[in-house]
Amino acid sequence: MITPAVTPDPPYYAVIFTSVRTPGDHGYEEAAIEMLALASAQPGFLGFETARQEIGISGSYWRSLEAIRAWKEHATHRDAQSRATDWYASLRVRICRVVREYGF
Amino acid sequence: MITPAVTPDPPYYAVIFTSVRTPGDHGYEEAAIEMLALASAQPGFLGFETARQEIGISGSYWRSLEAIRAWKEHATHRDAQSRATDWYASLRVRICRVVREYGF
Repeated sequence: MITPAVTPDPPYYAVIFTSVRTPGDHGYEEAAIEMLALASAQPGFLGFETARQEIGISGSYWRSLEAIRAWKEHATHRDAQSRATDWYASLRVRICRVVREYGF
Repeated sequence: MITPAVTPDPPYYAVIFTSVRTPGDHGYEEAAIEMLALASAQPGFLGFETARQEIGISGSYWRSLEAIRAWKEHATHRDAQSRATDWYASLRVRICRVVREYGF
């Protein structure tokens, strides 16, 4: 069964990536799969969740702000970032410190 | 056009609510609409985004941790929370401080 990401006790960090797609694929699906595989292999990566209807929301979870920064500056990821306006009509990236978590 | 939530300059706070639904509605759709209307009217509410595929991810944005706590303790919202296991097979609630935001 698919479940929410399993993350350690807080504090840790989250990137909330909210977007509206442009029409058409423009290589998006392939790049998204590649970026998730690459992100998952980065030091400090903790987990990932995503869903899209009218808007898309992804949460990626990280051990530290340094881990988020290193991923942002990864060369292959920078190449993908340079194509953002091909894929997204609008996007917001929110960098967060997770201070509390609960659930079942 | 639907867009990501428009939020003020950080810092502010986010609740990332990730869930997997149970089969069937069980009054969920009606309650979800009611809860969003009610949350939107609370002091300190800043915005809301949601999408669901295999999992659902919602982000709600708030001025302060106190605003999040007050909404959590709202009587009508507590009634809804008591039905969580009717609606969700699993859920994670992550309370976050948004420290940086960018986008277009």
